[in-house]
Parts: sequence; C-alpha cells; structure tokens
Amino acid sequence: MTWKEVAAEKKTSVDAKIPHEWWLEAIPSVDEVRSVIEYIEEKLDEKEVKITNSTVVELAEKISRGELSAIEVTKAFCHRAALAHQLTTCCCEIFFERAYKKAEELDEYFKKNGKTVGPLHGVPISLKDQVNLEGLDSALGYVSLVNKPKSKDQVSNIAKILEDAGAVFYVKTTTPMAMMSCCTSSNIYGYTLNPFNRNLSSGGSSGGEGALVGAKGSPLGFGTDIGGSIRVPSSFQGLYGLRGSSNRIPYCKVDNSYANAPVLSSVIGPMAWDLDDLKLVTKLIIDSKPWIHDPKVPPIPWREVIDYPNKLSFGIITGDGESKVHPPIERALKIAKDALIAQGHEVIEWKPPVSLGTCRDLAVSIYGTDGYKEIVDECAKSGEPIVKEILALAGDSKSLPQGISHVHEHWDQARLRYEYQQKVDEYWLSTASQTSTGRPVDGIIAPVWESCSFKPQDIDLFSLSYTSTFNILDYSVVTTPVTFANKDIDVKDVSYKPISAHDKALQAYYVPELFDGAPAGVQVITPRYEEERAIYLAGVLRDALN
Amino acid sequence: MTWKEVAAEKKTSVDAKIPHEWWLEAIPSVDEVRSVIEYIEEKLDEKEVKITNSTVVELAEKISRGELSAIEVTKAFCHRAALAHQLTTCCCEIFFERAYKKAEELDEYFKKNGKTVGPLHGVPISLKDQVNLEGLDSALGYVSLVNKPKSKDQVSNIAKILEDAGAVFYVKTTTPMAMMSCCTSSNIYGYTLNPFNRNLSSGGSSGGEGALVGAKGSPLGFGTDIGGSIRVPSSFQGLYGLRGSSNRIPYCKVDNSYANAPVLSSVIGPMAWDLDDLKLVTKLIIDSKPWIHDPKVPPIPWREVIDYPNKLSFGIITGDGESKVHPPIERALKIAKDALIAQGHEVIEWKPPVSLGTCRDLAVSIYGTDGYKEIVDECAKSGEPIVKEILALAGDSKSLPQGISHVHEHWDQARLRYEYQQKVDEYWLSTASQTSTGRPVDGIIAPVWESCSFKPQDIDLFSLSYTSTFNILDYSVVTTPVTFANKDIDVKDVSYKPISAHDKALQAYYVPELFDGAPAGVQVITPRYEEERAIYLAGVLRDALN
Repeated sequence: MTWKEVAAEKKTSVDAKIPHEWWLEAIPSVDEVRSVIEYIEEKLDEKEVKITNSTVVELAEKISRGELSAIEVTKAFCHRAALAHQLTTCCCEIFFERAYKKAEELDEYFKKNGKTVGPLHGVPISLKDQVNLEGLDSALGYVSLVNKPKSKDQVSNIAKILEDAGAVFYVKTTTPMAMMSCCTSSNIYGYTLNPFNRNLSSGGSSGGEGALVGAKGSPLGFGTDIGGSIRVPSSFQGLYGLRGSSNRIPYCKVDNSYANAPVLSSVIGPMAWDLDDLKLVTKLIIDSKPWIHDPKVPPIPWREVIDYPNKLSFGIITGDGESKVHPPIERALKIAKDALIAQGHEVIEWKPPVSLGTCRDLAVSIYGTDGYKEIVDECAKSGEPIVKEILALAGDSKSLPQGISHVHEHWDQARLRYEYQQKVDEYWLSTASQTSTGRPVDGIIAPVWESCSFKPQDIDLFSLSYTSTFNILDYSVVTTPVTFANKDIDVKDVSYKPISAHDKALQAYYVPELFDGAPAGVQVITPRYEEERAIYLAGVLRDALN
Repeated sequence: MTWKEVAAEKKTSVDAKIPHEWWLEAIPSVDEVRSVIEYIEEKLDEKEVKITNSTVVELAEKISRGELSAIEVTKAFCHRAALAHQLTTCCCEIFFERAYKKAEELDEYFKKNGKTVGPLHGVPISLKDQVNLEGLDSALGYVSLVNKPKSKDQVSNIAKILEDAGAVFYVKTTTPMAMMSCCTSSNIYGYTLNPFNRNLSSGGSSGGEGALVGAKGSPLGFGTDIGGSIRVPSSFQGLYGLRGSSNRIPYCKVDNSYANAPVLSSVIGPMAWDLDDLKLVTKLIIDSKPWIHDPKVPPIPWREVIDYPNKLSFGIITGDGESKVHPPIERALKIAKDALIAQGHEVIEWKPPVSLGTCRDLAVSIYGTDGYKEIVDECAKSGEPIVKEILALAGDSKSLPQGISHVHEHWDQARLRYEYQQKVDEYWLSTASQTSTGRPVDGIIAPVWESCSFKPQDIDLFSLSYTSTFNILDYSVVTTPVTFANKDIDVKDVSYKPISAHDKALQAYYVPELFDGAPAGVQVITPRYEEERAIYLAGVLRDALN
C-alpha cells in the first residue's frame, strides 16, 4: 500500500468506530456554524448535555453516590466526542465498545461492593495519542507507525495510574506529525480545528485534546509539552492546562519523538475546563508515588498550599520585544492584571536578564539538534512527505536545518540552558526588592501566544517565545482562560507602528472578524516544581476574574 | 614556559605554602614507614593529636562551648594536613594563612556575640580541587588550568553553604587529570598515595580527599563521583563516603570535566571517617534548601529516618561474574553479612536482570562519548601528554576510542540507561517476594572494588563494575569501612580456577604482603534519592560491626 492508502484507511477506520446513529448528515460550513459548542448540544439529549457539562469532581461524586452510573456517563461523553470529532477531527483512536465494557465492570463492582475502585471511578478521561494503551496504535502523526498496536508491556505508567483510580478511556487524540508543531496537522488526519471558531487551528501539539476538551467531548485529558504543546491548545480552547516541571508527572512509556534527547524533555500534564478537576487529577497522580515505577520522577510528594499570604505580587509579561500581541490577548492581560489589582494584589513588570527570544532561540536550536533526521527517517519509512508545519518550526519553509556537527555543541546547549535558569532564578529572587510584600513575586502572568490562534496553514507567522521560554527554564505553568475575542471590542490599533517586518506581518494578520469568539487566556507561572502553587495562583486569578 | 615548567612551578608553589617548621627532614621510604598515621601523630603535639582525632560533631560542640577555639582547631588540622601532604601528595592548594584569618574572625564573632555563626563554626573542611574558591585555581589535574584563579562570581554553591555554616577552608585536594580515573595522577603532582599503605594508590578521582581525610588531615571533605570517584578513595582509606543521587547535593559552579554532558552526571558528596559527621553535613546542606540557588537540585527536603522496622533485609553482591574479588574484600563482605545476620537481619543474594558488567559498559561508553576530545583539546593547550590512567579508562592503553559518530548514539545511551533503571527498579521491588519482612530488600551490600587498592601504575587491571553500575542506576550509596587487609588471614586461594584471562591476571596480582594494612569496605546501597536511608543503613552496619 502507498502511504496515502495507509493514511486513508486509518482515518476511515477511526471514523467507522462511530456508531451510525451518531453520524452527522452533513458537516456544516464554518459560515453556517463557526462555534460548534451549541450545535453539538442540540444533537444531545438533555441528560447527555447535563453530564457532559459536569466537572470531574461532580461526576465522580455523583457516581460514588449512585446518582449516575459509569456507563451512562461514558456513553454521554462518547456521544459528545463523536460529534466533536466529526466537526474538528480531534480523535485518532476511538474505542467506545471497550469503554462501555470497562464502565459496566465498574458499575458491577460498585453494585457488588457498595464503593468505588478509586476517586475517578467511571470518569471518562481522554489521552493524547502518545499515551500507550494495549492493542492500540500510538502513531504520533506518522503513517509509518499506523497499525502497530501496543503490547501490554508498553502501557504508559500514567494510563495505569488513571485506570487504577477508576478512569475510563474511550478515545486517543490527534497530534501533529512527531508532535513537533503548535498546529495539529498530519498526513493522516489533516488539520484539527478549533471548536470555538472553526476558522482557526486548535493549536498543538496537543490539539486533539484541546479541541475535544474544549468541545466538552471529554472532561479532562492529557497532553504533552516541550515548547507549548499543552499550553497553546489549552489557551486556544479556553482551558486550564498544566505544564509541570520535568517529570513531576510520569512520562514513562509514553511514546515520543526524540524520546531520549536529554537536554530538554517534554512533560505530560492534564488539560481541563475546570481548575478543581486539574488539581484533583494532578494530586491523585502525585499521591500515587509515581517515582516508584518511573526512575525519572523526583520523589516530591504533593504539598498542599496552605496559609498562603493574602496579598500577592505578580510579575507580568506583556510582550517579547519582537512584536506586539493581538488585541484580544492584550485585553486578556489587562483584564487579568486589573482583576488581580482589584483584589488587592500587586502586579509589577517582569524584566528578566535573559530575553524570551533568547530562550526561544535556544529551545529551537535544541529541537533541531539532529537536523530533524529522526523525522526525515521516520517519514522515509512510509514515503510520506514532511508536513509543512515541521518545516515552519525549522524557521525556513524550504529546508530543514543542519543540526549540530559535534556532540560538544549539544552539551553547549545544556550549558546555556543551565546558565539561563540560574540567571532568571536569581532575577526572580531579586524581585523581593521591588514588591511591597517583601517576597519575590509569587507568580508571573504572561501571554501564551501572540494571538488567539491562527488559520491552520499560517503557523509560520508566530513565535514560540512565550511558551518555550518556560520549557527552557522548566518552570511550572497553568494556563488560565480569561475572555473571548470580540470583534467589536478588539479592534485594530491603527496608530501602532510595527517594530519589524515580522511584527508588521503579524499585525496585518489580525482581522477582528476572523478571530471573533476565540478564547483568550494567559499563563500563570511559578518557579520549578511548584505545581501546587501554580494551580493555587491560577485559582486566585480565576476567582479574581469571577 | 613549557608545560613541565608550569607544572613544576605549581607544585613547588603549593609545597612552599607549608611553613618551614612543619617540613619533614626526609620522607621515609615505604619500607621504613608503610602506614603514615602513627608517623604523623609522632610529629604532632598532644593537643593536635586530640583535636585531629575528634569528629566534626565533637569539634563543633567544643567550639560552641568555648572549650576549643576555631584558630587552634584550624592550626591543628593545617599541621596534620601539611604532614599528610608531604607523605602522600594529597593537596593541590594550600592556604593556611587565609584559614587562620577566617578562624580568628570566627573566634572574634563568638567572643563578641556569645554564639556561633552556624553548626560548623570553626570546623576545617577540605575540598576536592573542583570546588571553586575565590582567588584559587581549580586546575582539575590539567597544566593548562594552572594559574587561572577563580573570581568571586565563580565560587561554588556548596562552598557558600559550608562557609555560611561556619566551615573553615584551608586546602584543596588533588585529582587525576580531568577526574576521569580511579587513580589520582596528573602531570603536575604525580600519584597521590594511600596513607595506610604507601605501596598503594589512594584511589580516585577524589584521591586527594581520600588520602587527606584518611590521614586525619581533615575531619571531612568533599569529593565527586561519576563512576566511583567518591566511593573508591573512601573505601581505600576506610571512610564513609556518600554518593547521593543526581544533584541531591548542589554541584552548581563546581568545575568539572564534561560539565554539561547530560546523559550521566557526576555528583558531589562528603567523605568522612565518622558516619555521624557525614549525616550532620549532608543534612545541613539539604536543610539550606540548595534548590533555591541551583536549578538542577530537586526540592526534596531532609526526611529523617524514624520508626524504621527493626528487622531488615539486605541484598548482597559478592561478584560481578567477570572475576573474583581479592581475599580481603571477600572477607569484608563476609564480616558484614555475618554481622547483619547476627543482629537478626536477613541477607539474600542480589541477582539483578541487568548485570554489573552491562551497566559498566554503558557507563564507559558514555564517558567516551566524544572520544575524549575534551581531554585531548585541554592537554593540547599546554602540550602536556595525556596521563596513562585516562588511556586505561578507554580500555586500551594504546589509543583513545572513537566516540560516537552521531548524536542519536548519545540519545541511545540515555535510552539504555533509563531502561536499565526501570528493569533494576522493578527487580528491587520484586524482592519483596523473597524476604521474610514482606518488604523489598531495604538495601544492598556490595564490594566497591575488586581489591583494597592497587599499585599506582596498575589501574588497568581493574573494572569499574561495582561502582559505575550505581551511577547508571543513580542509587544512593554510602561506603562503609569493615576491616583491614591482613596478610596472615587474607591468604591466596590457591584452589580457585580463574574464569577468564582477566580474572587470572587479577588473582595473580594479589600478594598478601603488598596489601597488608589497607582498609577494606563495602557499599551500602538504597534506591534513588534515599540518601537518608543509605546513611541510616550504613549506621546499622556500623553498629552491627561494633
């Protein structure tokens, strides 16, 4: 078979897993249905709408009280996921029957024992394609990895932890080829669209999760992030997404590109529309002592944030010095800042000694260490072409970069990363002299991306500076939704003079009508291995916004 | 100047820092004075002997009660270090005057304030040459790095922590060229000898620390370890040495070879003749929250071992399957095992699914990633030749290995390391099925080296299997002294049939008379980031032996 045939067969086989009664007769055009949220809810019955609008906390509680069964919860999410997938192409593995079987077993257990198996008993959880489940592919957006189901031995640690807690798996979600892009596109599934505004990309590389959780086809899912891949789709879909510090959450046996490249590692983390859900699941994972079965996880127990001072100080980043963010993002930052100040908190400018662009350049050089040979080689196995977005990452849409010529250059990347971390850590500590609390700033508020999203083809207009900087620094980050793009409020600033050709192109790209309705969020950032605090501060912002 | 002139001038300048009144008239031959311990004590006055035979705990307590002054303690250790250096060549920086000034300041502070500056007030601590101090070289055994004193900004974090606690620095200790050998030899200082038996090497790469602390010219010092470099000299000199898991103790701004190579990192740790001292200093460092100023340190607080079960199970390693250990080591293992069993503990055979030799081979391949280009380049700067011991590490005394040809091979090393860790961790957990406690074994007892030491030229006879395995696995290890080689007890086992040519050569190397008097110890090993437990279990063994 040619790669095209393999890809087409795979896509068809995934779609075919959706029961006929859930098929949409026709997919409406973007002009007809820009945001699919209401459109999806119209196709669901009242109970399904109610279930799928429940949080993990609510679902788990109702199931544990016998008010909902695992099977009805699972079926509701399967139905909604099936609709979301048809409208956004967010799933790459669909296994509803298997989920029903599991849910029924859980119901049986509950009936027999009068208790749940764990805190996620009967709660559907979605997983980015990289997470290995027995009998299913982890194709990572590659044609060559299609039809290579995983064995029992290959099941990801995180899947076991969630399953032990009672979670029900039912879909795996799309990734771009090799997960190396913030736009989810592959030769198998094409582009994954944004359910809030189908003009736009769902982001990436956890764009399948972003679209699915955004459309509430899942209450909570897992993405991965080496340069923004949890945060970008979280922000694009108005979600809370946790990019924890390296290996706080176990990555063991999660498939990956550049899986063993040691200088900068991808992390795995939850994405959810409810922050309490994000906390519940993160705590549950850490409470399971994941370091016992994953040598890379540092043995740091969950440290609940208690008695945190009332008055907080935040640093704020409003730009990267390379371009101006689009009006909805500018407004989201202002809303966040004003809300924090209104609550009596303090917001000061964050001026680190290493610029975002410098950190981003290092990240991009690390991604390209091997000149993307791994991707070239993997594509060669099936004959598929490298997707445009990978070429964009390389900073040149015509050819891939050279990569390093000696391993010493790789070690130099590690040296630079460590130096940047030391410098910015010391700067963070030094902010104590600028705050009225006498403490260093408690967290940082920053954009996630220059815009709310972009048209699927147009990722090369954007930089990774806001996200990849915090991969380099390895800080803990929780994206926090703030508002939605509004064409009437977020008008173009015609007086602004762009500072570069790139900035000019970026500003020209902003068309209020195109982005209307898209979520706009921010990052809430804390020092390394302060996931508990990052979640807490995201809650402070959430509460301030409400 | 030629490299020989630079080297000679450096060595002369170090020796010249010793006051004339402490010069030995002649250095006795090994036949005259094999162990220098008593010989040194004869040159000291009674009070100096008493001070230098005190533990850190005792010294700190007496100073804090005003029973001893910092200056008299410092002078006693300077005197003893000066003698040890003349007999073993263990120091590469001597700065007694600076130490006296510091000690006098501390005495002044104590007099004025009636309290100490911290728990190490006035206690002399020695440092391996890699630890940067202002105004002093960190030459790492390279001629090219001589006369390049460090600036204030370059001072190691660990030095600041110790100094803040009141420690007094007075010497830095020798390393082999590039620290890449378990025999301490450089073109500047030649070989560092074993104070217990000057026929033998002090080991390495922290061989200067080993010799100095072994001769009680320091109560406690710091070494580093990427393949055994703390444990080998600790064992060769009968010391407790802690090789903690990666970055539990901060390495930030400690100079190093291959400083940024990310697949396998060196760790820094204390070496002392008293285990309580080792614990005091380790706890003090961790209590200082070293993660605040070192981005690589995981934020794991000190977790005191309390209520540990009375009955323990130990795994034991008696061989690596490649050769038989020498009789004193075999006896040390038996003594340790019998002592533990006599206390009601259990000792079972440790049979991991990845052999020590396999782990060692991976470690050696990681060390040689760049074909030792860094060392070749550094030597080229001064023109000095590469020392024989580095060539020995490469497994071929004639030429250096090639190194990797593509960065993917480096990533493959990282993959293998992670796989070995996972396999051995799971094996460790599985031992619960073999113990009578129902728990996995609490720790492992293992040899450190095939012998008590070796004649300085002869390192190529030995393997790194017992030590480098635990660098690959990143387990916590405390070396524990057990006994001394005794030519009358540790006779040759003439009935033993060697299993290989290498084993045959190793057995032939054992001459009871040569090793007589040399310390023989074992490793006490726990899982990753269990430094507290490793120290605790070393205490269990110590108490069982007493």
